[in-house]
Amino acid sequence: MNKLRISQRVSQVIHSPIRKFLPLVLKAEAKGIEVLKINVGDPDIEPSPKFWQALKKFPPQNLGYAPSPGIAEHTRAWQKYYTHFGLKLKPENIIPTVGCAEAMLFSLLVTTDPGDEIIVFEPLYSSYKGFAAVCNIKLVPITLRVDSGFALPNEQTIAKKITSRTKAIVVVNPNNPTGTILTSREITRLINLAVKHHLFIITDETYREIIFKGRPGSLLQITRARQQMILVDSASKRFSCPGARIGCLVSYNPAIMAAALKLAMVRLSAPTLEQYGLIPLLNNPRAFTRTITREYKKRRGAVIKGLRQIPGVTCYQPQGAFYLIAKLPVKNTEDFITFLLTSFQDKKQTILVTPAEDFYITEGLGRNEIRIAYVLDTKKLTRAMILLKKGLAEYQTRRQSS
Amino acid sequence: MNKLRISQRVSQVIHSPIRKFLPLVLKAEAKGIEVLKINVGDPDIEPSPKFWQALKKFPPQNLGYAPSPGIAEHTRAWQKYYTHFGLKLKPENIIPTVGCAEAMLFSLLVTTDPGDEIIVFEPLYSSYKGFAAVCNIKLVPITLRVDSGFALPNEQTIAKKITSRTKAIVVVNPNNPTGTILTSREITRLINLAVKHHLFIITDETYREIIFKGRPGSLLQITRARQQMILVDSASKRFSCPGARIGCLVSYNPAIMAAALKLAMVRLSAPTLEQYGLIPLLNNPRAFTRTITREYKKRRGAVIKGLRQIPGVTCYQPQGAFYLIAKLPVKNTEDFITFLLTSFQDKKQTILVTPAEDFYITEGLGRNEIRIAYVLDTKKLTRAMILLKKGLAEYQTRRQSS
Repeated sequence: MNKLRISQRVSQVIHSPIRKFLPLVLKAEAKGIEVLKINVGDPDIEPSPKFWQALKKFPPQNLGYAPSPGIAEHTRAWQKYYTHFGLKLKPENIIPTVGCAEAMLFSLLVTTDPGDEIIVFEPLYSSYKGFAAVCNIKLVPITLRVDSGFALPNEQTIAKKITSRTKAIVVVNPNNPTGTILTSREITRLINLAVKHHLFIITDETYREIIFKGRPGSLLQITRARQQMILVDSASKRFSCPGARIGCLVSYNPAIMAAALKLAMVRLSAPTLEQYGLIPLLNNPRAFTRTITREYKKRRGAVIKGLRQIPGVTCYQPQGAFYLIAKLPVKNTEDFITFLLTSFQDKKQTILVTPAEDFYITEGLGRNEIRIAYVLDTKKLTRAMILLKKGLAEYQTRRQSS
Repeated sequence: MNKLRISQRVSQVIHSPIRKFLPLVLKAEAKGIEVLKINVGDPDIEPSPKFWQALKKFPPQNLGYAPSPGIAEHTRAWQKYYTHFGLKLKPENIIPTVGCAEAMLFSLLVTTDPGDEIIVFEPLYSSYKGFAAVCNIKLVPITLRVDSGFALPNEQTIAKKITSRTKAIVVVNPNNPTGTILTSREITRLINLAVKHHLFIITDETYREIIFKGRPGSLLQITRARQQMILVDSASKRFSCPGARIGCLVSYNPAIMAAALKLAMVRLSAPTLEQYGLIPLLNNPRAFTRTITREYKKRRGAVIKGLRQIPGVTCYQPQGAFYLIAKLPVKNTEDFITFLLTSFQDKKQTILVTPAEDFYITEGLGRNEIRIAYVLDTKKLTRAMILLKKGLAEYQTRRQSS
């Protein structure tokens, strides 16, 4: 028997469709076509000058490992950051991680063994699918619908999916890819379920401050099931620095923190310089996050306005983050996106969006949906929506005539 | 049933003993005692000024995600780096990672499924133990002995440990924690086994250039079983910048690279700035690595000279990296290290070393051994060996009188 095969678990990780489109993007660009990219959550906004200033203060000296539970001053800065959201934490409740991605992986590893199940809501941020495959666990999806603004179903409907192997419920709030925010009723529902069925709640709050109404907060503010909660967080979006690779894992549960610390020690440390760079921003977060949230609100307006002028498109008003899912009057958005990149241009421009299928677990769902990330300025976004409208019209005409 | 337990896999990760000693170190330091720390592989040598210069050239701009397969210029710099060791690679054979740690995790995930086995040689760099627990795989140790300079046993002895579940052999070369280098006979033996039994070889070459005789190289230079090899590598030690968290995974096998790329995409990217910082060093590595290797050779001399003056200590001449394992005339080195930190001082100084037990998988092995990391200058190392000698003498006297 030849054992030189790739493992089952990695074979199950699905390639992101982004990769498939990259060669097509490069070809279009080689032909002199500008591709407006609203497919990835990689913001065009520069980080605060304070980040660069703090970096420069780091003298050319020994670039040693940061301590596994974070550079003390950096971890204390997260601690201070959370006081803005009514959270009193001790440094030992916080472990800085290599982006939210690592916090996610740690949360899944700490709460599950192979064969265990996690309740998620689809469409779902696709890295969870990859990490679940790596962790040999099963994601059990509750399907939400664009037509109902991705509202959660009632307690009983969710409870039906809970088995003896279910260990946790994952929520992303504000949500990627839908841009929705959990209502207080929905949160109560989830906490009821977690308490009743002894489940952990993994709450991914990467987009906390990017909300367009009300005050930002955290599920951790709710004391009832606090010991069951793991918060995964990130500096990437709120401070517009995803390349810094700094996030954190937070929990009031000492057993969770002890377990996460073991994982943190195995991987040694998160990057040293960026931990220093983020200290001033974590110490005084709101100035920066208020500015960018105002900007994203304007952008949302431009996208929604543009989408509403396209016949047959179903969309809704997202309340946070910088994404939305739109249903298009096409059968297969992957095919449509391929068309946009290979056979369409308007004044030497086209767009790149993400096919939503990647965000679903249930086979066949999301094929007529796309995710838009509003990571360009309003002028470009307005133009992008016109391109989408024109592209759709041309695509439909061609399909009818073929 | 209360399901709110920490997972089995993370429960199996053993806490590093370093953590246990940290409070004792802090207590000693609070009493005004200087603790010479030769316990962790965190070099005192500053990175090259070229690293800082390259960082400064990065303008205060969008700090976006690096591409998952690395920033093109950075990946090409690794490609150029490897030409110094006779390796012709394409960019698609290289994925920059978050330190060697991530490359290690990717290698294990790509080659194994839960329940699979990996052949390792103990004493073993302890992160492999942690990652194996996380991956739900079994490390099957071949025990090497300090008395025979950690030489590998013959082919038959190793073959006896191979089962239907064995997927790979892991080697760390030059070795942490032993400082040994595989002989060409040993390498042939391993390749024979890999070919015969269809096993992957995961070769961790973090310390490639830090060798005290001969020319540095790579197992990948051997063409025979090239498709079965995964190289895990790191900029941390050779460029003295562990806090940069940059390593890489290399393979000539396209299936391995495709699988590793999927994992790289799930975790998004390695830090952006440090990828830029390392470009000039990777493009011209030898100037820096030659200088530090000379320094480590001097340090090795100081440590060996000191150890040979201590009665009852067994040691050998390490050939690379900056570690060695020494057998001490005590029953339990953890107890001895506790003594050094709590009940010993000489002119207000003491030392911290690592108990070697942490590097063994077989229960009970390594209890009378320590690992020394020569990460201080020769003067301090000479003094550290005197402290070890005096500490040992005092410890033995107290044990006899108690």
